[in-house]
Amino acid sequence: MSADFAAIDWGTSSFRLWLMTCKGQVLDERRGPEGMQHCIEAGFAEVLDRYLTQVGAAPDLPVLICGMAGARQGWFEAPYADLPAEVAKLASQAVRLPLNLAGARDIRMMPGLAQRDPACPDVMRGEETQLAGLAKAGHEGLVCMPGTHCKWARLEGGAVTGFQSFLTGELFSLLSGHSILRHAMPEKGRILPDDPAFTTALDEALADPAAFMGQLFPIRAGQLLGFRSPEESFARLSGLLIGAEVGRQVAGNCAPVILVGQEGLGALYAEALRRSGTELVLANAEEATRDALLAAAAEIWGWQDA
Amino acid sequence: MSADFAAIDWGTSSFRLWLMTCKGQVLDERRGPEGMQHCIEAGFAEVLDRYLTQVGAAPDLPVLICGMAGARQGWFEAPYADLPAEVAKLASQAVRLPLNLAGARDIRMMPGLAQRDPACPDVMRGEETQLAGLAKAGHEGLVCMPGTHCKWARLEGGAVTGFQSFLTGELFSLLSGHSILRHAMPEKGRILPDDPAFTTALDEALADPAAFMGQLFPIRAGQLLGFRSPEESFARLSGLLIGAEVGRQVAGNCAPVILVGQEGLGALYAEALRRSGTELVLANAEEATRDALLAAAAEIWGWQDA
Repeated sequence: MSADFAAIDWGTSSFRLWLMTCKGQVLDERRGPEGMQHCIEAGFAEVLDRYLTQVGAAPDLPVLICGMAGARQGWFEAPYADLPAEVAKLASQAVRLPLNLAGARDIRMMPGLAQRDPACPDVMRGEETQLAGLAKAGHEGLVCMPGTHCKWARLEGGAVTGFQSFLTGELFSLLSGHSILRHAMPEKGRILPDDPAFTTALDEALADPAAFMGQLFPIRAGQLLGFRSPEESFARLSGLLIGAEVGRQVAGNCAPVILVGQEGLGALYAEALRRSGTELVLANAEEATRDALLAAAAEIWGWQDA
Repeated sequence: MSADFAAIDWGTSSFRLWLMTCKGQVLDERRGPEGMQHCIEAGFAEVLDRYLTQVGAAPDLPVLICGMAGARQGWFEAPYADLPAEVAKLASQAVRLPLNLAGARDIRMMPGLAQRDPACPDVMRGEETQLAGLAKAGHEGLVCMPGTHCKWARLEGGAVTGFQSFLTGELFSLLSGHSILRHAMPEKGRILPDDPAFTTALDEALADPAAFMGQLFPIRAGQLLGFRSPEESFARLSGLLIGAEVGRQVAGNCAPVILVGQEGLGALYAEALRRSGTELVLANAEEATRDALLAAAAEIWGWQDA
């Protein structure tokens, strides 16, 4: 069986490729750390060619990409689609890379989404494709997509009607690695969702999301005064930040939340959501992205319904 | 008239010296950037000697120091005093530097304060001396001391009964200079307290202190989508952070707040406090520190009431 296209999720710090048929069969796959940040220096075309050669792709195999590679500072800009955005129709706004970048190959870039509301402007790239996959699988409601910039989106009637991004993951890196709190942190930390230092901090922040600003410096003081170990301080900082975000987002929400990704950071968000009393619907991030890229490819290249 | 002692406020990033008589006359003064961070490499004794020589101090002139020079990572540790701390009596816990550090000179280090409460551990060094000066001038109530780590203390009956430090200033530096928000920031920013981008953000955060976590990423998105200039983004970030801190601290407080320092950052806190409907009592930071060091020196060296 021969491949019909390559589906690629090209994020800020990761690259993921599936070699697929138009019926959705995955013939091969690759993943690597060559995200946008790496490729700005290493070259997007070079990285893509290397991966396509690895999977034995024909010179004319079409390629469909979603994610940060389509940002202005990425490979080739795919303009944002606006809200409300019917996710099944995003393929119509994919752009084709010009000859000077793509050569003879047909390479398409999925659009991101922009919320052009002056009161709460926001953008996403890559998550819109995940959301299209979720919608295809029949999901509806509030979706939580953990990451360095965790995104919360509302999916209604197959359209994204609003979303909000949180800097929580980046804030955790900055505070634990580059603020005065770094003196209270372990050399290398790992947080388990059932760590009592993490869950206690979650509960505090869920109960009072505005409090955490005043609970940061005490992490340093707590270490100075001998109240907490570096490992406890690390877990506590994570719990305060994730708890403040989740507590804020689920306030007044009684519907289930669709959580995309349950490993690593996802497991910490799952714990926060559960402790907030929120019912969870679990979804797989990679499956959602791949399913949506397949559907978009069928739309773009005019295949029968995949 | 000859000097009786040198009073020194030795912070993390600043050095301030007053050459004084026991009656409180200031015969000379110096200030410089040689704070603790500088002196850990350059040497505390060397910096002190240079300044004392500049003001023509006698070899046996006593020296009284408050601030971070007394931290464990500073010159010589002065253990923390505990709460409730009667600030007029802190001099009794000042420590004298040993011969190997001080030579023949009598050098004393004021203690910091520690709040040894596992639920809200906190520490201060330098601010306790400001608070002693405020108490001496008859101030009582909630005191706000803006800085990289803004401190809020409760002064009751001449004692500090509790305090809380906020990372707000450091958070602003990290977010504006080292997070994804840096792309939305000006080369060099300066915020005036009546800047509408600042005051609008203040009002938003004062009304809803828990909201700001979700308003950080939109600063980057607002710049990408063309809603705000870099200068507006810079002022907005400051307003959101200070507003969240002040909104949290004044919730349910109807008494006046004593604000120490009204220039630069102090002016931004003053605006936030005013907009929150809080009545302000203005106090001078340097006067408070100098007055308290004079009173402590009189106590230590047995002079008549200064």
